[in-house]
Amino acid sequence: MKTRIEFTRAPIAPPAPDFSTRELGARLEFFGIVRELEDGKKIPGLFYEAYEPMARSQLEKIFQELLAKHPCQEISFIHRLDFVPVGEASLFISVLSRHRQAALALMGELIDRLKADVPIWKHAKK
Amino acid sequence: MKTRIEFTRAPIAPPAPDFSTRELGARLEFFGIVRELEDGKKIPGLFYEAYEPMARSQLEKIFQELLAKHPCQEISFIHRLDFVPVGEASLFISVLSRHRQAALALMGELIDRLKADVPIWKHAKK
Repeated sequence: MKTRIEFTRAPIAPPAPDFSTRELGARLEFFGIVRELEDGKKIPGLFYEAYEPMARSQLEKIFQELLAKHPCQEISFIHRLDFVPVGEASLFISVLSRHRQAALALMGELIDRLKADVPIWKHAKK
Repeated sequence: MKTRIEFTRAPIAPPAPDFSTRELGARLEFFGIVRELEDGKKIPGLFYEAYEPMARSQLEKIFQELLAKHPCQEISFIHRLDFVPVGEASLFISVLSRHRQAALALMGELIDRLKADVPIWKHAKK
């Protein structure tokens, strides 16, 4: 099992997937994009901030819990911080697995847990 | 709602996503990759064939059914045909939506329906 967590202040560049085991049948990628309307108001973008050490340790814990339920081989997690303009990604997650069902289940639960349990915040203004 | 269906005999090149509505918060991409073991035997790759006119009309029908349940703004579907080597994608699907839940639900059901109801077959030998 390979996991990777990255926080970046630059536009997100998805990493190349590693298919070296040759036993991975599914690669699922999620991009969370900043939308133009936030609470009904037009915005130019959103500001994100994270408490990074705690976010990393929470994410690692969540990954291990979810991997025990949904066997996947690789999770890459990238979150952009500071200002993210409308139409660009604040979040990228990729999951590699033998079978699609595990990747889909893990992805859905991971994003729910991220929003509930990981110290990353967004603001319309700095 | 935008849908796109492509069958190709070349390696799959995912299309650039269209965020022009500026109201799309989620982009989900699935790659179905050929694995090295098929029924316990090492293979160099798989051969895919489709009955294209029927596959297209079935897919369009399935898209419309699923879009009525899970509001998404765009589905791109690309299937590679003929020989696909181990480690390369035979299938690419991307879904764009306002919210992640619709994209995740649609993706899971679409792949299930694809396997059950669309005339695309795979063989270890030509």
